[in-house]
Amino acid sequence: MIHNPIYLDHASTTPVDRRVVRKMTPYFADAYGNPSGLYGHSREAKKAIDQSRKTIASFLGSKTEEIIFTSGGTESDNLAILGVARAIGRGHIITSKIEHSAVLNSCRQLEKEGFTVTYLDVDKEGTVKLDQLEKSLKKDTILVSIMYANNEIGTIEPIEKISRIIKSFRSKNKTATPYFHTDACQATLYLDMNIKSLGVDLLTFNGSKIYALKGVGVLYIKEGVKIAPILFGGEQEGGLRPGTENVPYIVAVAEALNIIKKHNFSIELKMRDFLINNLLKIEHSHLNGSRKNRLPNNVNITFDGIEGEAAILYLDKMGVELSTGSACMSQSLKPSHVITALGCSDEAAHSSLRISLGRDNNYSQMKKVVDVISETVVKLRKMSAVYEK
Amino acid sequence: MIHNPIYLDHASTTPVDRRVVRKMTPYFADAYGNPSGLYGHSREAKKAIDQSRKTIASFLGSKTEEIIFTSGGTESDNLAILGVARAIGRGHIITSKIEHSAVLNSCRQLEKEGFTVTYLDVDKEGTVKLDQLEKSLKKDTILVSIMYANNEIGTIEPIEKISRIIKSFRSKNKTATPYFHTDACQATLYLDMNIKSLGVDLLTFNGSKIYALKGVGVLYIKEGVKIAPILFGGEQEGGLRPGTENVPYIVAVAEALNIIKKHNFSIELKMRDFLINNLLKIEHSHLNGSRKNRLPNNVNITFDGIEGEAAILYLDKMGVELSTGSACMSQSLKPSHVITALGCSDEAAHSSLRISLGRDNNYSQMKKVVDVISETVVKLRKMSAVYEK
Repeated sequence: MIHNPIYLDHASTTPVDRRVVRKMTPYFADAYGNPSGLYGHSREAKKAIDQSRKTIASFLGSKTEEIIFTSGGTESDNLAILGVARAIGRGHIITSKIEHSAVLNSCRQLEKEGFTVTYLDVDKEGTVKLDQLEKSLKKDTILVSIMYANNEIGTIEPIEKISRIIKSFRSKNKTATPYFHTDACQATLYLDMNIKSLGVDLLTFNGSKIYALKGVGVLYIKEGVKIAPILFGGEQEGGLRPGTENVPYIVAVAEALNIIKKHNFSIELKMRDFLINNLLKIEHSHLNGSRKNRLPNNVNITFDGIEGEAAILYLDKMGVELSTGSACMSQSLKPSHVITALGCSDEAAHSSLRISLGRDNNYSQMKKVVDVISETVVKLRKMSAVYEK
Repeated sequence: MIHNPIYLDHASTTPVDRRVVRKMTPYFADAYGNPSGLYGHSREAKKAIDQSRKTIASFLGSKTEEIIFTSGGTESDNLAILGVARAIGRGHIITSKIEHSAVLNSCRQLEKEGFTVTYLDVDKEGTVKLDQLEKSLKKDTILVSIMYANNEIGTIEPIEKISRIIKSFRSKNKTATPYFHTDACQATLYLDMNIKSLGVDLLTFNGSKIYALKGVGVLYIKEGVKIAPILFGGEQEGGLRPGTENVPYIVAVAEALNIIKKHNFSIELKMRDFLINNLLKIEHSHLNGSRKNRLPNNVNITFDGIEGEAAILYLDKMGVELSTGSACMSQSLKPSHVITALGCSDEAAHSSLRISLGRDNNYSQMKKVVDVISETVVKLRKMSAVYEK
């Protein structure tokens, strides 16, 4: 591994903030009690969870009892979608074609269990088609699950508008009560996470994307939402999520949120725009996603004629770490379902690079990034003899 | 909290070994890559997982690809039981009445899904009745799930005998193929964990009981076992368990196993026998579980006429931390299902204390423990006016 590579894959996972590491470390070998016990070590652990839940609830504007801890974004998405569907027993679900695989594959599982699912199209910028959503809402629709911001192309979905459409539908159809879930894993660092202004009933986020840990997730569940557990065992988390609580990681999530509140991401935004402006100067390159309605840390560009994976490996050798898209799908040879949903060809999907910036990046790295990517694109195009003449 | 209390609840959770903390710490803020990426930081993380999986496979005597990482013992139990059952689609399951709630409640869930379940009785020492197992095996039995050692009373179940019974049944009924799963969470530190000598098809253990972490579990799945995922998303863990891998905790499990291999638990065994011998000198006290066939760190005694929870709180004030039984059930007011399965009354179940010793205990603490428990029992009996005269 090159010493000090430039890490540009924060949408895949973030390093753990050292302040977060410091905060959680006492819960390994010192305050190690099982929170369900009745003695000092347990009360200490229980107190840490209670305090963390309070911090998280305050961040979201929810009640503490509306916060459930899970093992990650995937489990939170699964609990929201499978949990609501199985609690209700039958019905129709609406999601979009560009969701994370944790949402899409939960929906596909529910189709096998007898539920029906509508996968909404997106426009060429990746925004969910609201008119199609309106038309898709049916009397037996039990859940709408639309992500807050896309992990590959950074497009921010109109969550508040979606919420208003659902509410208006509910008010006209008293017997229909579709819940609204959003996967906000990519949004937590940058966007308004107040569940009341968003108007959601369920919201997922996780530690892996907010400078906390891989292996811890949060699910906000509005009081009164019908939901069943998907794992069975002890009585933790109000009976909805069994298993001894991962105390250090829960403490870490709360601390990560405290840091988010203080963090100014205007530098990420400037670096993003610098990269987009300069990388689009490369011939035959196209920005994926929206220019305006975009996460402050996301750049996703198709460089026609290059093979994305080859580019990643080449860039890695040059000390620049990034990805083609979702890490969760990287073992698949299929083109990105997000890029193809924009109306792009499979080839274009295979020729895309995603840069996701983070707190540890700085402006002085960006010139190098532009140079190295430009060089890589030229080199790979030469190898594949595209645009040679 | 009293300074330096004597912690005697290792069956509930263990402190993290400081060597384990040191080993995993680099994976928080330094080697933080998502193992699915294609660049240096990711390869580093991937290598750590591969190496850990190798260590774990070697500990169990399995192939590396037979090891799956989960979020804990509860999820591993759920994946084994729900995963096998749902993959097969219908049939009969055999378990015991004294399993952990993660097993029992998974089985109860499957009853709701149309499966049938036999809950085997245990004898008064907590050993599963083998003749009843033999009679219960049917042509449509798809799974037998019996714990390796009980978490409350420390009774070691005859796993190899159970395995032989199942194998003999299989050989006589070619169409029937019941798999054998064991929850070995309490056994990992002390008993033979070689899956071949045990003869199991699936085996669960977790980090929380082996001086590693709460929030990480392992499931051994023998090659060829029919099993379906219970969570849906990315393609991690061979498609069986989605979600970005919790790299530090996986590294921690492997390091904890390395330490287990070197650890001599004869001191725990001596301390256990010292406690049993001396605590049974208290009038109207009875050992729960087997005297011989018992985990080296478990003591479980009923002190007639005391209220277990009151005793725990009193002992905590005296600097001794222990529990009445399973922490996962501590929010329930129901008597322990394990103690009542031994044929004891609800009152006896409410009057039981569990001591589970660990590496951090020493012989010099044991006299104090005996004194404090004796004093507590006398005091509580006085308060409730039992055995006063």
